Amino acid sequence: MKEINGGVCSPKGFRAGGIWCGIKSKSQKRDLALIYSEKPCAAAAMFTTNKVKAASVLVSQEHISGGVLHAVIANSGNANACTGGDGMAAARKMAELASDLFAISPRHVAVASTGVIGKPFPIAAIESGIEALGNSLRGDEAGHTAALEAIMTTDIHKKDGAFEIEIDGVPIHIGGMVKGSGMIHPNMATMLCFITTDAAISNEVLDTCLRSAVRRSFHRVSVDGDTSTNDMILVMANGQAGNTPIAGGSAACDIFCQALEALCVKLARAMARDGEGATKLVTVTVSGSSDEDSAETLAKAVVSSSLVKAACFGADANWGRVLCAMGYSGAAFNPAEVDVGFASGGEEIIVCRGGASVAFSEDDAKRILSREEIEIRVKAGAGTGSATAWGCDLTYDYVKINGDYRS
Amino acid sequence: MKEINGGVCSPKGFRAGGIWCGIKSKSQKRDLALIYSEKPCAAAAMFTTNKVKAASVLVSQEHISGGVLHAVIANSGNANACTGGDGMAAARKMAELASDLFAISPRHVAVASTGVIGKPFPIAAIESGIEALGNSLRGDEAGHTAALEAIMTTDIHKKDGAFEIEIDGVPIHIGGMVKGSGMIHPNMATMLCFITTDAAISNEVLDTCLRSAVRRSFHRVSVDGDTSTNDMILVMANGQAGNTPIAGGSAACDIFCQALEALCVKLARAMARDGEGATKLVTVTVSGSSDEDSAETLAKAVVSSSLVKAACFGADANWGRVLCAMGYSGAAFNPAEVDVGFASGGEEIIVCRGGASVAFSEDDAKRILSREEIEIRVKAGAGTGSATAWGCDLTYDYVKINGDYRS
Repeated sequence: MKEINGGVCSPKGFRAGGIWCGIKSKSQKRDLALIYSEKPCAAAAMFTTNKVKAASVLVSQEHISGGVLHAVIANSGNANACTGGDGMAAARKMAELASDLFAISPRHVAVASTGVIGKPFPIAAIESGIEALGNSLRGDEAGHTAALEAIMTTDIHKKDGAFEIEIDGVPIHIGGMVKGSGMIHPNMATMLCFITTDAAISNEVLDTCLRSAVRRSFHRVSVDGDTSTNDMILVMANGQAGNTPIAGGSAACDIFCQALEALCVKLARAMARDGEGATKLVTVTVSGSSDEDSAETLAKAVVSSSLVKAACFGADANWGRVLCAMGYSGAAFNPAEVDVGFASGGEEIIVCRGGASVAFSEDDAKRILSREEIEIRVKAGAGTGSATAWGCDLTYDYVKINGDYRS
Repeated sequence: MKEINGGVCSPKGFRAGGIWCGIKSKSQKRDLALIYSEKPCAAAAMFTTNKVKAASVLVSQEHISGGVLHAVIANSGNANACTGGDGMAAARKMAELASDLFAISPRHVAVASTGVIGKPFPIAAIESGIEALGNSLRGDEAGHTAALEAIMTTDIHKKDGAFEIEIDGVPIHIGGMVKGSGMIHPNMATMLCFITTDAAISNEVLDTCLRSAVRRSFHRVSVDGDTSTNDMILVMANGQAGNTPIAGGSAACDIFCQALEALCVKLARAMARDGEGATKLVTVTVSGSSDEDSAETLAKAVVSSSLVKAACFGADANWGRVLCAMGYSGAAFNPAEVDVGFASGGEEIIVCRGGASVAFSEDDAKRILSREEIEIRVKAGAGTGSATAWGCDLTYDYVKINGDYRS
């Protein structure tokens, strides 16, 4: 498995593009994206579990049910959520507009939106921009980047990646992009994630691989505990690599799943690091739990705690808050068996052993916690379950960004 | 029911006091409190559900199991949590020191602590201060206030109250104090709450009244979603009002329960308003749910959402975040039936009807949301269940206070 460039355009047969069509009326930044495969793709997707679902989510759920996609059209600047019947009609229209470009079925187009909730959806802007969007498609990194820019909202950094693997001697590519910084929570987030691959694989096997990868990546990221109305992760596989189709449970499937998980972890970590207002990536690793589920519950509780996050911002080695968060997580553990350490840049300092304080240098702790990537290491007991979760610190800027998002 | 002064000293036969014994070594503010009843009291209590429990919680749980208390001793500045066997010995010693003052059983003394988690507990400071603490006891408001000051940490305002009711022509008093501002969450918080009454009532009936009152008050407050290791609410009833003992399920019991609930709501609201860094009290009322439980789940989700809280700080009428929080709460409702309004100072503005946007004046919304007490009113459907929850906005100062709490 090697890292490569090109994002969603690195697999064969995919093109992407992005333009400004007028939704982001103030900033005039790109706000409309398209990813298109020459051949129809086996597709799998996961969506927000929020009861309040954006129109784009409802339409894409319908379209993905057939297991085949040709393209995805996505906009930023308006979430098309809480927009009633007009919003549903607009989401269907978006799929139609994209399908008209290529004379494909609108049912083979997924639709995604991100931005403000509850504002009427400006479908006219998309209608007026659709031709330019079609013309913007390119099969190279520039196309990928334009599409990625067009789905960003409060994101600061571009978050993407691609890997090449070999299955039976055939090179296979997987590339992806993600947007998302606020509302990032276990069970996905205001995140849109699009992944492309030229692997030949059925939509059923793809679905299994996706669920396993997401469990250990996006479901373990938290920025602020809110789960959005628009979350969506979508994988399209067009088979153009020419490999023998990947069978479920095969060695080839393991290789593919590992690469998909590696890509998802890379994107999930980048999303945590790019959390609204974040100055630090916080990684929480829990080991010694009875099983992976318990470890996951503990790791997520610690990484989601506002008090832990604020302490990370202040580089304050307040490990009591780590134990406190574990205590209300609902997972089983014995507080008297817990060790806690803080680590970064190859240094580690143990601050709690057997659930109680140990002497440590406050200067060392301050230095470790002042770095941009810090790790909280928890040994929860003598079990074999472990899990990693990612988040960020809670900062003044988080409050600033979210205190007046709409204006 | 009328409001009176005097706090925990307003009921007959109670004295209280507070001193500085040296735990808050930097600020030299009061850090040790005592509340004492001349007669033994029927007592009821509720404690944190966190798996990581402070030594004081474990010792008080043991002592309350007999249903009788004479006194409560409490300190601030050190939580005596994650302090191992030494912490347990120190908590027992605290009870003993208080019991020695009055020649009562240590088992009739409750112990409470609040402050930093995981630091060795300075029991020597309490030993050296215990005599002065005994001498500080007074049966008036000054005694109440000194005790209240001695349990405060990041609290800015003193939070207390008292009511007089009449049962069978006999005046009965209920008074209380609470500390708590960070980590305030449904299922209590880093809160210590002590309530006294001169009512004659058994500990069993008192326990039932307390659970009902807490359900509709402290369990509906959220500041930052963390639940602490030290939470405790304690009621002591010494019977000195001379009423016929209140029987469970009687009309007298209803009157008493109402007064206890009113006091708890007053203290809970004050705690939300005094949330760390808060500039506003945010009240969320949900009506039209299928039942009270659903309404409670929805109200708590909205008041706990970081994004809703940040929008309240910024006076931004971002009602989509209200629906979004409802959507991930887990409670059943139909998004298409939801109305949302913002209200304050006698004004109300409807911003969402039937789950979709309605036109409203942004200026009006800004004015309403800029006041110090704002209400988010949600009609979730056509049911009869309703509930109210309290919280506060998320501000720069919350981050500041919690970024470096230990130093």
